[in-house]
Amino acid sequence: MKCRTCGQKAVVNMRQHKLALCKEHYLEWIPEQTERFIGKYHMFSKDEKILVAVSGGKDSLSLWDILNRLGYQADGLYIGLGIDESIDYSKESHRFTIKFADEHQLKLHSVDVEKEYGHSIPVLAELSHRGKGRPCAVCGLTKRHVMNRIARDLGYDVLATGHNLDDEAATLFGNTLIWSGESLVRQSPVLPESDGLARKVKPLCRFYEKEMTAYALLRGIEYIYEECPFSIGSTSIYYKQLLNQLENERPGAKLIFYLKFLEARKQGLFNISEMDKSPLLTKCSSCGQPTSAEGECSFCRMMAKVKIPNQPNDDQ
Amino acid sequence: MKCRTCGQKAVVNMRQHKLALCKEHYLEWIPEQTERFIGKYHMFSKDEKILVAVSGGKDSLSLWDILNRLGYQADGLYIGLGIDESIDYSKESHRFTIKFADEHQLKLHSVDVEKEYGHSIPVLAELSHRGKGRPCAVCGLTKRHVMNRIARDLGYDVLATGHNLDDEAATLFGNTLIWSGESLVRQSPVLPESDGLARKVKPLCRFYEKEMTAYALLRGIEYIYEECPFSIGSTSIYYKQLLNQLENERPGAKLIFYLKFLEARKQGLFNISEMDKSPLLTKCSSCGQPTSAEGECSFCRMMAKVKIPNQPNDDQ
Repeated sequence: MKCRTCGQKAVVNMRQHKLALCKEHYLEWIPEQTERFIGKYHMFSKDEKILVAVSGGKDSLSLWDILNRLGYQADGLYIGLGIDESIDYSKESHRFTIKFADEHQLKLHSVDVEKEYGHSIPVLAELSHRGKGRPCAVCGLTKRHVMNRIARDLGYDVLATGHNLDDEAATLFGNTLIWSGESLVRQSPVLPESDGLARKVKPLCRFYEKEMTAYALLRGIEYIYEECPFSIGSTSIYYKQLLNQLENERPGAKLIFYLKFLEARKQGLFNISEMDKSPLLTKCSSCGQPTSAEGECSFCRMMAKVKIPNQPNDDQ
Repeated sequence: MKCRTCGQKAVVNMRQHKLALCKEHYLEWIPEQTERFIGKYHMFSKDEKILVAVSGGKDSLSLWDILNRLGYQADGLYIGLGIDESIDYSKESHRFTIKFADEHQLKLHSVDVEKEYGHSIPVLAELSHRGKGRPCAVCGLTKRHVMNRIARDLGYDVLATGHNLDDEAATLFGNTLIWSGESLVRQSPVLPESDGLARKVKPLCRFYEKEMTAYALLRGIEYIYEECPFSIGSTSIYYKQLLNQLENERPGAKLIFYLKFLEARKQGLFNISEMDKSPLLTKCSSCGQPTSAEGECSFCRMMAKVKIPNQPNDDQ
């Protein structure tokens, strides 16, 4: 297999694109494609300040690397979740993130959830009785809160996350299996700024997970290989496996599923005005972030709950 | 496991409905549910004349049986496709259909494609160079033509087919994977009468395939076990396998996928007026059936092509 660009030995063969490339040209191709997606979906410009949510994994570190290579003003935000029970997941991912930032002389903001809010994510989940034994819902809620807070307080225009095609296709698949209209009309590479929340973008949404793995490895980016221990057995991982099976049988199926969805929506398949039942947002009386609840937002209500000592345990 | 109705030993346990029933009450439950679906989707009334497309398989023979038990005026239509190469598929399925009609004293119309149109389906497919080695497209085109013709010529109000939930979910899955808007807005348990084409209904669309197998077996209906030999390796069978995998992991997932789709569409998820690009139909100059083509319909054009002797072989 030869590189389509230079004819040298290819190191990556993408059956879904019918494209093989050598290391050098693969490492050029990924940023070129990213730049194309940034433009196509009107994500951001070179004048804007970008906050990249970095977890220490291959996708977010690669995203940060690519944006930096493309000349964007992208700082990092690492959120320490305190998931260090079975393995040192958070400690290790923080270490990789700091190492990357140092080596590339990039600015990194770190927020430690336990230090700032009193409890790590697993403890918060236990104390708040949310999520039925899995801290994922509490983790999502907390990360959204922190990302929005830092973006707003430090004046970032855009919040960028490392979601890849496998992530997006799995989310789409889950929403399609139950035909959740509200979720279908909202899933997008770009969520515009609204009510004081920064614009949210996913510049890697069209890259296969394995393409990002190849990028990180070939670029020599050191990242945490382990998945979050709480993600084992999750629905999204199950959907990813099903979609991988489909992809193996029909190369390109995953990309087609996602791209045809974006195209169909653009061409008016969905009654967006009918489906987008976004409630009116007000300001949380405690943190000031937009919320659909009256008074305090979900995050502040959770925090109020876990801070009260000797609070009656509603499981009993 | 005990029958929910009478407490006797259950023979069928439907995890997806959390319902177990004995033979007697299962054989009552299926027609009751069918009656409920016929009413819910406004399929037909007791005054209307129904033509059931029977293939000799478990679904269509069970449908005919159920409609008969419920007191509907339902005659059968068997279409002889001439698929008797590897196994006597058509001959056997005809034999089972005739046996069922005789035993239940039901009226059966039989149309033999080779006798009426000069060639069996496999030969028609070969001569017309349609379908890339698979006669499924030619078979579908021919069956639609014959069903519409018989329904119109013999004055039937409704054409009923035995599609079950597995069929409908697989079709929906295929259309969703490529987000085919036109197909998504058209897939329905009922297609209303239009331009002289009889209404089309699928009264079994909410039953799992295994539920129909259990019904046929418990009712003692003799049917052809083999699938059409040309269906082996087809995309729809592949999608059924994937959905079965999902169903095994999450009982009820297949039903939820289909029902939530119908519900979402009813609640306005899709921009139906925007998507339904049905072209204006005119009458085929040869057979008189509605067609979107100018002049002759697809079926008549195919027939004209295969009737010309010494026609140049456009593969060469």
